[in-house]
Amino acid sequence: MRKVYLDHAATTPVRSEVAEMVSRFMLEEFGNASSVHNWGRRAREAVERARGQVASLIGARSEEIVFTSGGTESDNLAIKGVALANRERGRHIITSRIEHHAVLHACEFLEEEGWKVTYLPVDGDGLVDPDDVRRAITPETVLVTIMMANNEVGTIEPVAEIGRICAEHDVYFHTDAVQVVGNLPVDVEEIRVDLMTISGHKMYAPKGVGALYIRKGTRIASVLHGGAHERGLRAGTENVPGIVGMGLACELAQRELPERVPRLRSLRDRLIDGILATIPDVRLNGHRERRLPNNVNVSFRHIEGEALLLDLDLEGIGASSGSACTSGSLDPSHVLLAMGLPYEWAHGSVRMTLGKDTTDEDIDYVLEVLPRVVRRLRDMSPLTPIRKEYPRNVH
Amino acid sequence: MRKVYLDHAATTPVRSEVAEMVSRFMLEEFGNASSVHNWGRRAREAVERARGQVASLIGARSEEIVFTSGGTESDNLAIKGVALANRERGRHIITSRIEHHAVLHACEFLEEEGWKVTYLPVDGDGLVDPDDVRRAITPETVLVTIMMANNEVGTIEPVAEIGRICAEHDVYFHTDAVQVVGNLPVDVEEIRVDLMTISGHKMYAPKGVGALYIRKGTRIASVLHGGAHERGLRAGTENVPGIVGMGLACELAQRELPERVPRLRSLRDRLIDGILATIPDVRLNGHRERRLPNNVNVSFRHIEGEALLLDLDLEGIGASSGSACTSGSLDPSHVLLAMGLPYEWAHGSVRMTLGKDTTDEDIDYVLEVLPRVVRRLRDMSPLTPIRKEYPRNVH
Repeated sequence: MRKVYLDHAATTPVRSEVAEMVSRFMLEEFGNASSVHNWGRRAREAVERARGQVASLIGARSEEIVFTSGGTESDNLAIKGVALANRERGRHIITSRIEHHAVLHACEFLEEEGWKVTYLPVDGDGLVDPDDVRRAITPETVLVTIMMANNEVGTIEPVAEIGRICAEHDVYFHTDAVQVVGNLPVDVEEIRVDLMTISGHKMYAPKGVGALYIRKGTRIASVLHGGAHERGLRAGTENVPGIVGMGLACELAQRELPERVPRLRSLRDRLIDGILATIPDVRLNGHRERRLPNNVNVSFRHIEGEALLLDLDLEGIGASSGSACTSGSLDPSHVLLAMGLPYEWAHGSVRMTLGKDTTDEDIDYVLEVLPRVVRRLRDMSPLTPIRKEYPRNVH
Repeated sequence: MRKVYLDHAATTPVRSEVAEMVSRFMLEEFGNASSVHNWGRRAREAVERARGQVASLIGARSEEIVFTSGGTESDNLAIKGVALANRERGRHIITSRIEHHAVLHACEFLEEEGWKVTYLPVDGDGLVDPDDVRRAITPETVLVTIMMANNEVGTIEPVAEIGRICAEHDVYFHTDAVQVVGNLPVDVEEIRVDLMTISGHKMYAPKGVGALYIRKGTRIASVLHGGAHERGLRAGTENVPGIVGMGLACELAQRELPERVPRLRSLRDRLIDGILATIPDVRLNGHRERRLPNNVNVSFRHIEGEALLLDLDLEGIGASSGSACTSGSLDPSHVLLAMGLPYEWAHGSVRMTLGKDTTDEDIDYVLEVLPRVVRRLRDMSPLTPIRKEYPRNVH
């Protein structure tokens, strides 16, 4: 059976060049980057080379990159670290209702600690209005954290406008860019962002490694205490193989994005158009144009998303109902609800996210399987109204 | 030139069986363990198998193991997580002066947040007195955190006695066991410990993965917020390749320790005895018998430890002056100072930590090189008194 993995927003396979590099740093160049001997110095050099590769991909300076264990830790460091270091300036944070749970739950934790958090609404496409950000800023506001692109529906937020507003008001701006960095060109100067979260395993590097871009001069405290690693901002022995792998993945992405992005956009659009053309009672979630080049998120009325996923899985297609981080929950996506989608639609959503190795044949296969699976599920569903296009025997 | 890596307490190479497994989970079994499709379910199964392997090594139950990014994060989760969840019970923590900085700095952070912390002294061998623990406990005490074995001098603490005292007083007991688990048999029931920190890269598994044993029923809060991974105790996409690698390393350790431990002890003792017999003005740091099977820590009077390390490095020997996590600092080790070692001795300390692949020939080589290097450094040092055994031309 054909296997089509369409869940690259949840995680990507590690590309072979990167896996080889990771292996070398597990087996041969295995030193602790803080050791003074030859093994340690070679590890240190490799970490610093990787730091330069990550910085280069986003137009930053090496010393503005701190390596972490992943996107969640980077979000936590950005939000709690800035909060901790600036609490005498004020205790107000602005975010949106469609952030990843790493951002939302870090904010909720700070609320329990006495902070005030404003959760901005989004429109039907999942867009935050920059004017809402401007209006929400008070003299107490320390940080605005708005994601660069939504992980579920793929909508790309107006971060450059938000960055300009934050700069005007002298408020720190953090963006969770885990779905973007390595998959679309990003420049921290264009966005005027102060902190940006990056994840390795969303860009063909290993799980367990990420980075936080921290603009020079940003007041931030460590939230993971211990040794003086990463300029005192992130304690713990550096994950040298992971870091080196992430550095290489960044360099390769920088080289390949000009070709990869238009190709993925075209595959994505073919999949979206094909679904909308062949399946009735379906809608696209997220903005049609301001959209990640690999994201397809659609809702089927009268369908239970989880059932659809399992049927697709039996056909060899790996998709998701939203964020992998909330799988198992029976609640519909907080993102879709924030966008105003009615429950009956939100429950029937499926996210398919393409990867750099997704082919035309993969899309053909999905366009052959999906209409059939949807029709079968609707035939079985007590929710489905009886209509001409779905003949059923009714006794 | 011969290469002899004797810094296994800083980090170990990943063993080849583990590296192969990690590669497979980067390239083929690359799913996100929270995804519902086949790729995700296979990752989930692998994570749960690894959880069982870690639990088995320490006599715990699978559901008592939480995977983290490493020892530092586990220490932070144990200390801050218990503090956060129990702050209404009291705000007092007991620890020792010779803990790893991950423990000490987490405690210092809590002091800034209004907690009281008692830092217990140690004796000349680096031993904590269990009676000191008993005397320090007050009705406000929530947590005792004392390491299982010191990472610098190798002294094994009386954790079973301390565990009994904590149980009697209904106080949580955490131990940082990163130097022990995978290198000596450990049983959480024998120690009656409630929380135990484990690190992957100290036991031939990759960097970037660790675990925290949390006894069932322990009140603890998450300190890294986000998705509901690891039963809500540690957000962030599971580092599946690292976790699986750590699981395998635990299983292999469990099988090999009965043979490995006595062999390492014997090599260690040959190295210690050889150094003490052939080099004047030298002392062993740490307890002679209650000692990690792979740890040698010696001080040479009139020698700058860092200079000795560099000379050993030129001869192909990788050693350290203490913890890799504090390399670059010019201060002498806080552990040696807490043990009462005078500055002149503490500055001249060298730690050599053996690994499972260390050979008799490696020890021969060190015993040939080290006396020569020490002699040369002493000849050059203005600190060295003029004596018969070190003839110098004095003008």
